[in-house]
Amino acid sequence: MKNINAYAAKTKDSDLKPFNLDRREVLADDVKIDILYCGVCHSDIHTVRNDWGNSKYPVVPGHEIIGRVSEVGKNVSDFKEGDLVGVGCMVDSCQECASCKDDLEQYCENGFVGTYNGEDKHMGGHTYGGYSEMIVVDQKFVLRIPENLDTKAVAPLLCAGITTWSPLRQWNVKKGDKVGVIGLGGLGHMGVKFAHALGAHVVMITTSPSKAEDAKELGADEVLISKNEEEMKKHAGSFDFLLNTVPVGHDTNPYINLLKRDATMVLVGAIDSLGVHGGGLVMGRKRIAGSLIGGIKETQEMLDFCGKHNIVSDIEMIDIQNINEAYERVINSDVKYRFVIDMESLKN
Amino acid sequence: MKNINAYAAKTKDSDLKPFNLDRREVLADDVKIDILYCGVCHSDIHTVRNDWGNSKYPVVPGHEIIGRVSEVGKNVSDFKEGDLVGVGCMVDSCQECASCKDDLEQYCENGFVGTYNGEDKHMGGHTYGGYSEMIVVDQKFVLRIPENLDTKAVAPLLCAGITTWSPLRQWNVKKGDKVGVIGLGGLGHMGVKFAHALGAHVVMITTSPSKAEDAKELGADEVLISKNEEEMKKHAGSFDFLLNTVPVGHDTNPYINLLKRDATMVLVGAIDSLGVHGGGLVMGRKRIAGSLIGGIKETQEMLDFCGKHNIVSDIEMIDIQNINEAYERVINSDVKYRFVIDMESLKN
Repeated sequence: MKNINAYAAKTKDSDLKPFNLDRREVLADDVKIDILYCGVCHSDIHTVRNDWGNSKYPVVPGHEIIGRVSEVGKNVSDFKEGDLVGVGCMVDSCQECASCKDDLEQYCENGFVGTYNGEDKHMGGHTYGGYSEMIVVDQKFVLRIPENLDTKAVAPLLCAGITTWSPLRQWNVKKGDKVGVIGLGGLGHMGVKFAHALGAHVVMITTSPSKAEDAKELGADEVLISKNEEEMKKHAGSFDFLLNTVPVGHDTNPYINLLKRDATMVLVGAIDSLGVHGGGLVMGRKRIAGSLIGGIKETQEMLDFCGKHNIVSDIEMIDIQNINEAYERVINSDVKYRFVIDMESLKN
Repeated sequence: MKNINAYAAKTKDSDLKPFNLDRREVLADDVKIDILYCGVCHSDIHTVRNDWGNSKYPVVPGHEIIGRVSEVGKNVSDFKEGDLVGVGCMVDSCQECASCKDDLEQYCENGFVGTYNGEDKHMGGHTYGGYSEMIVVDQKFVLRIPENLDTKAVAPLLCAGITTWSPLRQWNVKKGDKVGVIGLGGLGHMGVKFAHALGAHVVMITTSPSKAEDAKELGADEVLISKNEEEMKKHAGSFDFLLNTVPVGHDTNPYINLLKRDATMVLVGAIDSLGVHGGGLVMGRKRIAGSLIGGIKETQEMLDFCGKHNIVSDIEMIDIQNINEAYERVINSDVKYRFVIDMESLKN
């Protein structure tokens, strides 16, 4: 066991502050990673503030982790000291259920172990995330990061990236498809980049006309203002696929109306109650589906795709000391499009 | 034009009464059918009572029509006098849009013509349905009825049958699948018969323990009482497919929880607002889809399948003079499982 520096919230209402953290020694299948960067995901804030009612304190958030390998266990041959690697939302799963065998650890029937606030099977208690100088992770959950990319801007790919990539791939979005990305935030901006890179005709669907210019720079071919009923009517029944990144419960019916017959809207953000009218689905044999992050294998595929197509996240760098202020700005959607913590600042 | 006997509602609040009806002469592509039987669908009642706000009076309902060909137009070679035929929910569509070309006339992008209360392109005004001594229909919308079946019990296949058959086929329900049919009424009882005939392990999901015995007689292997939380927990995450025939808005979340990862619940009845929690879809990459009746080609396939497997609807015969009383019983779910009108009674 080793005592290291991290940032944690001690209670639901407290700010994040410096914290001494125990990390396990490197076991046979482990990779020890010195953390360079960690992205700030809205889930971090939900967990810190116990919005989902299942937080365990102290909470050390962070599941968009980039670092370099500093040590490997004796069974590890795919990684060596100095390798640039990443860790996303999961650090373990049962490896035995149907989902794990299908490379879909995120749906592990025995429950995957979250990078933070999961059940720590090695140390007892719960897992601690990436707002920390290092992390020790089973090799099966370590991702290889292409060296040609802007390293710090890769961090958000580990959650925001794979969350949008996975449904685009599962539903076979391809060249020429008309794809709508609903909501322009951390998830939505990655959805636009990926859908564009996959050759789709990308329509950014947003309530905010002010986001039009930005959306086009990210790769959107068109911008559709969802509050404009006339514009929404013009696009009715024309979309092959909708990626819905809205992070809260909302009325889905105006979006369902945009889908072609047999087309699908995938939810990746809203885990609350939704407005859904049965008739909208019945009349065109339309579908609403969900999608949760992505498996380790497809996360590696996404990272390799990003390396090849030079895709990273648009980020704003912060020091760990500014994390509480950054949280307020995330809540106010005042970030383009993801904060990344320079973990070097932990030494300040 | 020919003046014939029918039953119609003259206003939203009136009972159905005898009515003299104009039918067009037989055109080149037409088939004239002397109606033997007509099923009573809940949509008939919704239209008679203008529940959907788009009824045109007088309403002659009926879109589960069985009869014998009495005359054919000069372009008609597939049907001849004396043939046993049926007409379902549609009597026309554009034949030119993508949906029509895909044999999915029910999703015609220019709107299919309903068997009643549709826009009558030949006579002007609106179409009149099957509570009538005869009907004249374009040959493309006439179905061939297997002669080996109990003819009067075939009528409900034209709407209740195809509405449940189409999603079971679209989602490839097959031998060994665990399939839940939610709700035991006109639609649900056909869903159980079809899923059983396709080799699935069929679970009837109902709020009413009193329906257990009947469900098993129809072909259900198990009955799951949805109000029993413990039973619902035991079946969580175990269904390959759910056919939801509940005819009104409801909370879908307890059913979504029954689905396996990547599995689908199809709605065929509820065209109102539904309770849907995004998290339930996201956590197992689950799906809700809609489905509307079925195309003419797949309706013929269903009828041929029924002929081969000796499947018909469970019915209660009535005379047309009892139609208003039958409506009350449909509304109170007091029918096993479909009323069929003996159209011979029109002559009384």
